[in-house]
Amino acid sequence: MNRTVIRGGLVITAADELHADVLVENGRVAALAAHGTDAAAGWSAEHEIDATGTYVIPGGVDAHTHMEMPFGGTQASDTFETGTRAAAWGGTTTIVDFAIQSKGGSLREGLDAWHAKADGQCAVDYAFHMIMSDVNAASLKEMDALVGEGVTSFKLFTAYPGVFLSDDGQILRAMQQAASNGGLVMTHAENGLAIDVLVEQALARGETDPRHHGEVRNALLEAEATHRVIKLAQVAGAPVYVVHVSAEEAVAELARARDQGLPVFGETCPQYLFLSTDNLAEPDFEGAKYVCSTPLRPKEHQAALWRGLRTDDLQVVSTDHCPFCFKGQKELGRNDFSKIPNGMPGVESRMDLLHQAVVDGHISRRRWIEIACAAPARMFGLYPKKGTIAPGADADIVLYDPHAEQTLSAATHHMNVDYSPYEGKKVTGRVRTVLSRGVPVIDGGRYTGRAGQGMYVPRATSQYLD
Amino acid sequence: MNRTVIRGGLVITAADELHADVLVENGRVAALAAHGTDAAAGWSAEHEIDATGTYVIPGGVDAHTHMEMPFGGTQASDTFETGTRAAAWGGTTTIVDFAIQSKGGSLREGLDAWHAKADGQCAVDYAFHMIMSDVNAASLKEMDALVGEGVTSFKLFTAYPGVFLSDDGQILRAMQQAASNGGLVMTHAENGLAIDVLVEQALARGETDPRHHGEVRNALLEAEATHRVIKLAQVAGAPVYVVHVSAEEAVAELARARDQGLPVFGETCPQYLFLSTDNLAEPDFEGAKYVCSTPLRPKEHQAALWRGLRTDDLQVVSTDHCPFCFKGQKELGRNDFSKIPNGMPGVESRMDLLHQAVVDGHISRRRWIEIACAAPARMFGLYPKKGTIAPGADADIVLYDPHAEQTLSAATHHMNVDYSPYEGKKVTGRVRTVLSRGVPVIDGGRYTGRAGQGMYVPRATSQYLD
Amino acid sequence: MNRTVIRGGLVITAADELHADVLVENGRVAALAAHGTDAAAGWSAEHEIDATGTYVIPGGVDAHTHMEMPFGGTQASDTFETGTRAAAWGGTTTIVDFAIQSKGGSLREGLDAWHAKADGQCAVDYAFHMIMSDVNAASLKEMDALVGEGVTSFKLFTAYPGVFLSDDGQILRAMQQAASNGGLVMTHAENGLAIDVLVEQALARGETDPRHHGEVRNALLEAEATHRVIKLAQVAGAPVYVVHVSAEEAVAELARARDQGLPVFGETCPQYLFLSTDNLAEPDFEGAKYVCSTPLRPKEHQAALWRGLRTDDLQVVSTDHCPFCFKGQKELGRNDFSKIPNGMPGVESRMDLLHQAVVDGHISRRRWIEIACAAPARMFGLYPKKGTIAPGADADIVLYDPHAEQTLSAATHHMNVDYSPYEGKKVTGRVRTVLSRGVPVIDGGRYTGRAGQGMYVPRATSQYLD
Amino acid sequence: MNRTVIRGGLVITAADELHADVLVENGRVAALAAHGTDAAAGWSAEHEIDATGTYVIPGGVDAHTHMEMPFGGTQASDTFETGTRAAAWGGTTTIVDFAIQSKGGSLREGLDAWHAKADGQCAVDYAFHMIMSDVNAASLKEMDALVGEGVTSFKLFTAYPGVFLSDDGQILRAMQQAASNGGLVMTHAENGLAIDVLVEQALARGETDPRHHGEVRNALLEAEATHRVIKLAQVAGAPVYVVHVSAEEAVAELARARDQGLPVFGETCPQYLFLSTDNLAEPDFEGAKYVCSTPLRPKEHQAALWRGLRTDDLQVVSTDHCPFCFKGQKELGRNDFSKIPNGMPGVESRMDLLHQAVVDGHISRRRWIEIACAAPARMFGLYPKKGTIAPGADADIVLYDPHAEQTLSAATHHMNVDYSPYEGKKVTGRVRTVLSRGVPVIDGGRYTGRAGQGMYVPRATSQYLD
Repeated sequence: MNRTVIRGGLVITAADELHADVLVENGRVAALAAHGTDAAAGWSAEHEIDATGTYVIPGGVDAHTHMEMPFGGTQASDTFETGTRAAAWGGTTTIVDFAIQSKGGSLREGLDAWHAKADGQCAVDYAFHMIMSDVNAASLKEMDALVGEGVTSFKLFTAYPGVFLSDDGQILRAMQQAASNGGLVMTHAENGLAIDVLVEQALARGETDPRHHGEVRNALLEAEATHRVIKLAQVAGAPVYVVHVSAEEAVAELARARDQGLPVFGETCPQYLFLSTDNLAEPDFEGAKYVCSTPLRPKEHQAALWRGLRTDDLQVVSTDHCPFCFKGQKELGRNDFSKIPNGMPGVESRMDLLHQAVVDGHISRRRWIEIACAAPARMFGLYPKKGTIAPGADADIVLYDPHAEQTLSAATHHMNVDYSPYEGKKVTGRVRTVLSRGVPVIDGGRYTGRAGQGMYVPRATSQYLD
Repeated sequence: MNRTVIRGGLVITAADELHADVLVENGRVAALAAHGTDAAAGWSAEHEIDATGTYVIPGGVDAHTHMEMPFGGTQASDTFETGTRAAAWGGTTTIVDFAIQSKGGSLREGLDAWHAKADGQCAVDYAFHMIMSDVNAASLKEMDALVGEGVTSFKLFTAYPGVFLSDDGQILRAMQQAASNGGLVMTHAENGLAIDVLVEQALARGETDPRHHGEVRNALLEAEATHRVIKLAQVAGAPVYVVHVSAEEAVAELARARDQGLPVFGETCPQYLFLSTDNLAEPDFEGAKYVCSTPLRPKEHQAALWRGLRTDDLQVVSTDHCPFCFKGQKELGRNDFSKIPNGMPGVESRMDLLHQAVVDGHISRRRWIEIACAAPARMFGLYPKKGTIAPGADADIVLYDPHAEQTLSAATHHMNVDYSPYEGKKVTGRVRTVLSRGVPVIDGGRYTGRAGQGMYVPRATSQYLD
Repeated sequence: MNRTVIRGGLVITAADELHADVLVENGRVAALAAHGTDAAAGWSAEHEIDATGTYVIPGGVDAHTHMEMPFGGTQASDTFETGTRAAAWGGTTTIVDFAIQSKGGSLREGLDAWHAKADGQCAVDYAFHMIMSDVNAASLKEMDALVGEGVTSFKLFTAYPGVFLSDDGQILRAMQQAASNGGLVMTHAENGLAIDVLVEQALARGETDPRHHGEVRNALLEAEATHRVIKLAQVAGAPVYVVHVSAEEAVAELARARDQGLPVFGETCPQYLFLSTDNLAEPDFEGAKYVCSTPLRPKEHQAALWRGLRTDDLQVVSTDHCPFCFKGQKELGRNDFSKIPNGMPGVESRMDLLHQAVVDGHISRRRWIEIACAAPARMFGLYPKKGTIAPGADADIVLYDPHAEQTLSAATHHMNVDYSPYEGKKVTGRVRTVLSRGVPVIDGGRYTGRAGQGMYVPRATSQYLD
Repeated sequence: MNRTVIRGGLVITAADELHADVLVENGRVAALAAHGTDAAAGWSAEHEIDATGTYVIPGGVDAHTHMEMPFGGTQASDTFETGTRAAAWGGTTTIVDFAIQSKGGSLREGLDAWHAKADGQCAVDYAFHMIMSDVNAASLKEMDALVGEGVTSFKLFTAYPGVFLSDDGQILRAMQQAASNGGLVMTHAENGLAIDVLVEQALARGETDPRHHGEVRNALLEAEATHRVIKLAQVAGAPVYVVHVSAEEAVAELARARDQGLPVFGETCPQYLFLSTDNLAEPDFEGAKYVCSTPLRPKEHQAALWRGLRTDDLQVVSTDHCPFCFKGQKELGRNDFSKIPNGMPGVESRMDLLHQAVVDGHISRRRWIEIACAAPARMFGLYPKKGTIAPGADADIVLYDPHAEQTLSAATHHMNVDYSPYEGKKVTGRVRTVLSRGVPVIDGGRYTGRAGQGMYVPRATSQYLD
């Protein structure tokens, strides 16, 4: 038996802050004991980790990543190997990536392709959502099978006409299917048809700079689609999870629905909390680094997002990690913002940025762990295996030094992308040690893991619907 | 010169209730004078009408009719001749009908076709809205010309995929065009794509009865589309007018937008105020008589509609007059509710039903005239020519006996349709005399008008946007 | 018979804009006729007024004035004579002033006292509301009698503890009485008990400057009291009219109640639309000129007030005219803002400032007349005698030159107060001629009226409750 | 050392459901270990408790009781001894009772008096809130001292004029003081002045039956006061906790405030969730058993309360336990409902009724523990000592049999009151064993505790404000 004891830290979960020692047996948390008790003192283990002065927290769960995702003729620059290694560096021990059904293809083919990309490559555990690009009788039926094998969430788009967009009838059908099989429909909620009109008109006016990306993707069109998918879900008797919420008006729609008791959920991302249209307006095409959809919003929207996180009208902070290098990739849109690959890196910096939010007074320590670990795990059927430190849980554990200072930079990050959207930003707090199922993968400033340490994790249905 | 004096009645407009005599010169109101003054006493005229004991009100303006409209292989059973004659009987002296652009055709062709149908046929004055079935660069451009010649409102549909539905990009473009040329976009707001899914599923379950028409056209899908067109209008910087609002949840969306000061308007119809899904559920296919879209709603929705009319969140009551005979027309859907021609008669009974609402205490007398005469006239650029009794206005004047009792029935109505949705309903109040531009068209229980008395009226842009 | 014809102007009422001539007989409007018609041309009259190029509008109705009101040991500086003359200069032909019940006194005594002050003094017509300072069994009973004799509205205060404040039980009783006798309860809605705590604390901190007046009278405490009186009215089954609404949050409470269809009404004043806490913060005690309650708010609130006026969540603009001279009166509070007499002049400038709002694009011309003339007349039972130009109405008529320019100033105004809150402000539009019941009181830049021309006008119950 | 191991149960906390064994050392939870692990198996202890088939849950925390409280000349029929013993029977191991400042007295005197009543009497642990009946400079100052010694919450009343009511200025001052010392103001939110008017009027109409108690305490007057205390708290920059919320409209006010991110909290009670005005209307004065304030509401309100508990707009379910016997006590109001002592028993049945809510599908198991144990402990500064099962927590632990069935009845309950408001109601689930700091107080159907086992627990400030 392989035993590890973590002694002397402050264990922080979504529910508690405890001065407790943690006993790990065979990759799982076997026990917690109050520090200084006979019970704790009596433990012997091969490995002892001194956590004095650190937070002992669950490994992060990033429920929204796109490793090596094809987009507009190129693909996201992080592979499952480089991306999950960067995740480990940043204290994230589980990602949920998106397998993609191609138009005309089956869900199965898409899922198999993504399994092939990830298998044996990952530094930390991973699971899959399924993107549905072609809702039809066959793919609706396939949803049931996928739920049965641990792919329990399905993403549909009201944006990207001709690529990912499903029409409202298709979305309704997918929601009805999810209502019957326990699945959870996730939506990218922007009115893509209206946005395409605005894009065309902006380009016709010669507005080609990245900042116009933020203007044409009007916040009202995010609010509109958010309201629409909520109503469709209500008609279907299904829950709905809205990804990457960025507009104050969209948060308001979620809050309104939740006040009515509807099973409506929302996710935001660090870029919407810390960046704004000011970044999109950076000169010399630098704004391209910040092009993602939903787009960054004017600074004033940030307060609504923080408030939504505090009031639990937003439950999850994921990254939508989908990096493209500035050179060669972002540059594809130099003369036409609509050709800039949409996406930003983030999987490595999420836990740190959200800890900074604790330092800044936006959220409490427990809420930090909730939005970054516990809530995404519950939302997508991984809890309590992932997302907490409790007897029986996987020993995905991070020792976090809350006083260390660091400067975010492309020069030091481990994501495979040539820029950092937070270049030069100073944050307080840093990962010291990361265990993935009991195995140290980051320790003493070194990566001690390996490709293949991370395993595929089939998921239960959402635990927010109990 | 042709002069008529109407003496001794209570003149009721949207603004005032006055004991005043009315002088008509050459088809127009020349003057109002307080009854009993020297000024009034001094008038001499060829015709004197004794209005003692009656209300002297503006002729009704029905802003939503579909005379002889093609629908599903048949056509609405009232021609412009029969329909406008029935309007006159009911105290309505102006209708605004819908010319239809066919798919692939131009607005002009559609408008010309409707002019041809109406020309020389009408008993009372008429104008046209334009239904856009094919929004494209050419038809967008045509909108400007139509506004210039008095067709200043354009109806688009989020319902009826494959027939009338425009996608959200098309609706946005039309709204942008209207924002630039002063036009007003009207929308039929139901999520047609989602409804079609529910229709298909209902029929697959063997639910073929007319009452299922009310179920599949879910109120939430009306609320959804209402919210959507409001947001699209907000993005376009344009006003929007939502036709035939029937669901409480849709009224709530209008109220929410109006509280924000947005130029958002709503119309309801007598059928939604007086009838309900109870009627759709009448046995022996009788429910087919009440099939229209948006559908009748459960009774509970009526209170919200009345409240909306009182709070001015709904501004207009039109009829959506589009009659189909039970025999031979409604029967087309005997085994499939989705094949029942959508529409109901109403042009003749609107003024009476709304007067009944005064009797019932739902609205005041002035509000009756506002929602039935003044507001539709203002909304569609006909005021003060139509919709009021004021110096300079057209002498479209109704003497209304508020104490007469009548029973609504197909046996006595003048619409060309073999049933009345209000069969047997007793109402208090009845039209006694109707002048159309000074000419009596209903008098002493007889139709004294003629086809061709009614003239086409080009319209200014909406006077709600000043 | 005394006849006057006003020819060639644009008659503007809340409902209409008409090119019409107006015939006045014996102090009343006898007739309107379309300009240029035989009917109009046929009129002969002793007096002809050429209105070419002017608006012909109803005389203003200022529903909230305090002539020679006692306050904190001094009294408002305008008497009924000087105040109503200034009103005439500004195009206002009716005021509704507040008679005051003293603590321990009867309503009757208060009303008699105010009649004595006004009788024979006024340049234009006047009516009374009744301030209730002592709600008890006797005064509740007196309400019925007052309604019977034309004093149909009763003001109660949630502010000014020890002076005017009624407790919530008293307010409820007064509302119940009003519900039974048709009266309308008006409320000054601020939480006076909480404000007094904040006043005491501010003074204890040495915050004595006028700007602290705006801070201690927290906008949230206006919203609170507004909500409270709405709920009390709802319990009583009574309407309620909230005077001098100044806070955005209070407007929101009114809008919320009105969306529910409750008979809840709100008034604002020009000072809240055109001035702000910036004025209260003027140095050298100049801020004292702007001390009134509710207080001026930060500029950001103005947009909500304008929106409320457009959406009809606010119905009336009155002045709360209650002037105190800077010298000797405002100065009483030089070392203690709470001792500054509360009140500002305004009766003369209201019509002009609201016309400026038309010029500035905040409201339409008809809405100008509605909020300044027709709505207050309807609200307080004076319509259509006052507030409109229609056959039978009193001939209170203003010829208004919409293109004249003027500069507001204490040097030129006619109110008996040594400063103007709008000193130096340029506005477009100016009164040319004013008729009070057919008699010119302002003409050719001269006051042609006399004390005693203005008569007491008993009022009907509110016409907003029909 | 005294060690107990609880083996084989399902540990349920607000956060987790774990198959874990629990080790208790010296009255505290020393460790949790996954059942079946070596870590768990290795524990030895004097006492082993077999929890197979049961839930192992934290002891209940009832944050609102009134043991032996004086009211209207009588006093609540449960002493601290009988009341806390009944609490133990019902699985509640901590109560927070209300010490009362008398008019003219100090907080200290009140607190001392309540300490004297409870000291040495209690079967389970207890703490105190402080009721402020006389807010003045001295008592405001005393608040600081009380916070320092563990009485960190202060209840004020907008109801009961002449007894407990504080005016809005006093409430504001108390909230300001709390804002500065970390205390939490709790409010009984009903407009007592308005209610007293309605009471007087009802009695004058001869409406003396208990059901009129529910009518005069109008739900709108609860909503009013709820809004008012929220605004006062906002002005003070303080949090506020509204006790015994019963009206749908009051929940809506809380939800509205929470959507804005305000620190506003609400509690409801089982009687509002399970009983209604139907009970108040029981014949033969039986309705008196259900007289409490806020009153029971019509059944329709229950859905809003359940929804509020699900959406976390209500955080806590307490009992407001304040029993009065039907004979001799409730009977005081036989001819006048306003003389019926206000209050109902409940401390024993809360945990069972809320488990029934789990069975009925209203809430999840974890939410049951949250609203009944964890949230009240956090709200009132007792967490994690109370309210959870975690290393370091007090070993207040209940073994709960989720399948046992029982019938609630005065014949079998242990509260000192001669009736049960739930007489005959069958519920599923029952307490099997209760540990109070490791000591069994209920076991095998017997009370094994003793008066004096329960200790006073000083409290930290609210942990909802971190």
